[in-house]
Amino acid sequence: MAKAAPVTASTVLELTEALPLDCGQSLAGVRIAYETYGSLNAAGDNAVLICHATTGDQYLASTHPITGKPGWWDRMVGPGKGIDTDRFYVICPNVLGSCMGTSGPSSPAPDGQPWAMRFPVITIRDMVRAHLALLDALGVGQLHAVVGGSMGGMQALSLAANWPDRARRVLAIAATGEMPAQNIAFQEVGRQAVMADPNWQGGAYYNTGKAPDAGLSVARMAAHITYLSQATLSEKFGRRLQDREAKSFGFDADFQVESYLRYQGESFTGRFDANSYLYITRAMSYFDLAEECGGLLADAFTDCKARFCLVSFDTDWLYPTIESRNLAHALNAAGAPVSFVELAAPFGHDSFLLEVPELDRVIAGFLDQ
Amino acid sequence: MAKAAPVTASTVLELTEALPLDCGQSLAGVRIAYETYGSLNAAGDNAVLICHATTGDQYLASTHPITGKPGWWDRMVGPGKGIDTDRFYVICPNVLGSCMGTSGPSSPAPDGQPWAMRFPVITIRDMVRAHLALLDALGVGQLHAVVGGSMGGMQALSLAANWPDRARRVLAIAATGEMPAQNIAFQEVGRQAVMADPNWQGGAYYNTGKAPDAGLSVARMAAHITYLSQATLSEKFGRRLQDREAKSFGFDADFQVESYLRYQGESFTGRFDANSYLYITRAMSYFDLAEECGGLLADAFTDCKARFCLVSFDTDWLYPTIESRNLAHALNAAGAPVSFVELAAPFGHDSFLLEVPELDRVIAGFLDQ
Repeated sequence: MAKAAPVTASTVLELTEALPLDCGQSLAGVRIAYETYGSLNAAGDNAVLICHATTGDQYLASTHPITGKPGWWDRMVGPGKGIDTDRFYVICPNVLGSCMGTSGPSSPAPDGQPWAMRFPVITIRDMVRAHLALLDALGVGQLHAVVGGSMGGMQALSLAANWPDRARRVLAIAATGEMPAQNIAFQEVGRQAVMADPNWQGGAYYNTGKAPDAGLSVARMAAHITYLSQATLSEKFGRRLQDREAKSFGFDADFQVESYLRYQGESFTGRFDANSYLYITRAMSYFDLAEECGGLLADAFTDCKARFCLVSFDTDWLYPTIESRNLAHALNAAGAPVSFVELAAPFGHDSFLLEVPELDRVIAGFLDQ
Repeated sequence: MAKAAPVTASTVLELTEALPLDCGQSLAGVRIAYETYGSLNAAGDNAVLICHATTGDQYLASTHPITGKPGWWDRMVGPGKGIDTDRFYVICPNVLGSCMGTSGPSSPAPDGQPWAMRFPVITIRDMVRAHLALLDALGVGQLHAVVGGSMGGMQALSLAANWPDRARRVLAIAATGEMPAQNIAFQEVGRQAVMADPNWQGGAYYNTGKAPDAGLSVARMAAHITYLSQATLSEKFGRRLQDREAKSFGFDADFQVESYLRYQGESFTGRFDANSYLYITRAMSYFDLAEECGGLLADAFTDCKARFCLVSFDTDWLYPTIESRNLAHALNAAGAPVSFVELAAPFGHDSFLLEVPELDRVIAGFLDQ
């Protein structure tokens, strides 16, 4: 059993046993890169697992090694913050299928070559299986809480539904229990953009000196629009021009919003693997807790003793409030204690990552219950 | 002066004078492909100009020569229909910059080679300039009405704002007076998808035997999602699988919505030119009636004597009701008579093309006023 790290630790765990997957295969030699913050207490009951979103990573509250930027939830996680690392032992693993140290399509297969598209197609539940193997190795039995936004929220819900004794509290922000058709559609557009890039080469681009950066950039641009609200785009950019007095009557980035999007696309390719993008969006489109238990979402939570907290944002059109409300109804039907709040925040789906003080209070309050 | 065609006529007009453009250039030898339905009456006052949307064309109520499908507004335009061709002389031109016979980037430049990216960047107002040249040639002075949905509505508004005596009625459906930032963003994604395709070759692909079909297909897929409502996607497809009993754990189109989108993308490339897509979306992102007259939308309509009718749809998130409401306020401020209605329709932005009987009644009623 691994010992808990004292303050912040960045580690990679290699699993000794093969990880069973929903596709029917097992994956040997899985590596899980993770960060921890704070310490596990003597009773071993203060662990909080935080699950990251689609293109997130384990750099929750520590500097990202590629971008040099603060951790993606630095504002929420730390001493005295909404998730207080003086009290909680916070664990954040990079998800299975990703590219920041955890096994994924860019990792070496048993033959020493990158898996590429030979990597098995994974699910959200498979990501959670990897998380649980990590918790086992860290000596964490029952979590004080599992927490996540967006795809992180789906992992939290999957953990609660499939391993009902493993967490006492489940906090899912801007999430869903069943990926809606519009989101499946946007995810498919992203994958098609990557696969349309000739540099993708059927996924076998790792040793070619080329990568499908252009396609991945387009995928990121399209996705990025869905993370923001119309109001944010209008207020932040409106129709303002970029470094020019007048329209160019050409195809340069005349508008600030065009320049911003291009930057988002290009910078993303510097930190993310295109095949990981395919695998992770595929896992999201497959996510359907109701289907896993016969078709009724409430049945997913029958055996669950955890308390639940669901948060949505009024301007989030990608995972709108109705998705959280459906979850709340299912949890009510299953007799689970659930609180559900829709917060007013202008930033759209990305609100869970941004300055929404009310969210900090909701999270801190829920972890205290 | 050309004579009005008796029933349905499909014609191409070649302008004898160069067309002045907003970019400062003039375009010589412009050809305008158009269809007409019904006859111009002796008083010459029963003409209705119908302007098509981004990827529409002149095949308003006649079979499309490539797809073999009925005209895009066949349900609205014809004898006894909402726009009654027994009463009105209906004219539908292919817009400048498009690819169905009107001059655009795929047309021959003076050197005999396709214009490609040498074609000047055009605006919505330039499209209207071409329409007016066509009306002049057809002997139509003042229109009974100018009508359009989406980008067609923007042309109608541009005509009213810039040539205030040219139409007695202006009907703009699911349109805007100033392209919002989110739409500029989606338009940019589409262009980047096309230009990321190596077959685009800087736009000079016409004689290479290759076309940026993969990029154009991705652009269309992304755009197509924005034309539909979340509810339509959920009801029409939900999470249903395509011709299979179970998920494939692969990257095929497992879901019906994925298969549908791929089909929309692929079939689009068979009927549309990628460079035209760039030019037309650029014209849309440049559209800003307020900017054209100093910054205040109301000032765009100061001299206008026309009656206006604005229609929005409650599930249209691409051109939401607020856009039409802003227009209505501007027209009120300008003292123009305007009726504005938000219709309940489940189909999102595409509602203007689909079965919404209330729209037929609104249009027929407005044309009768």
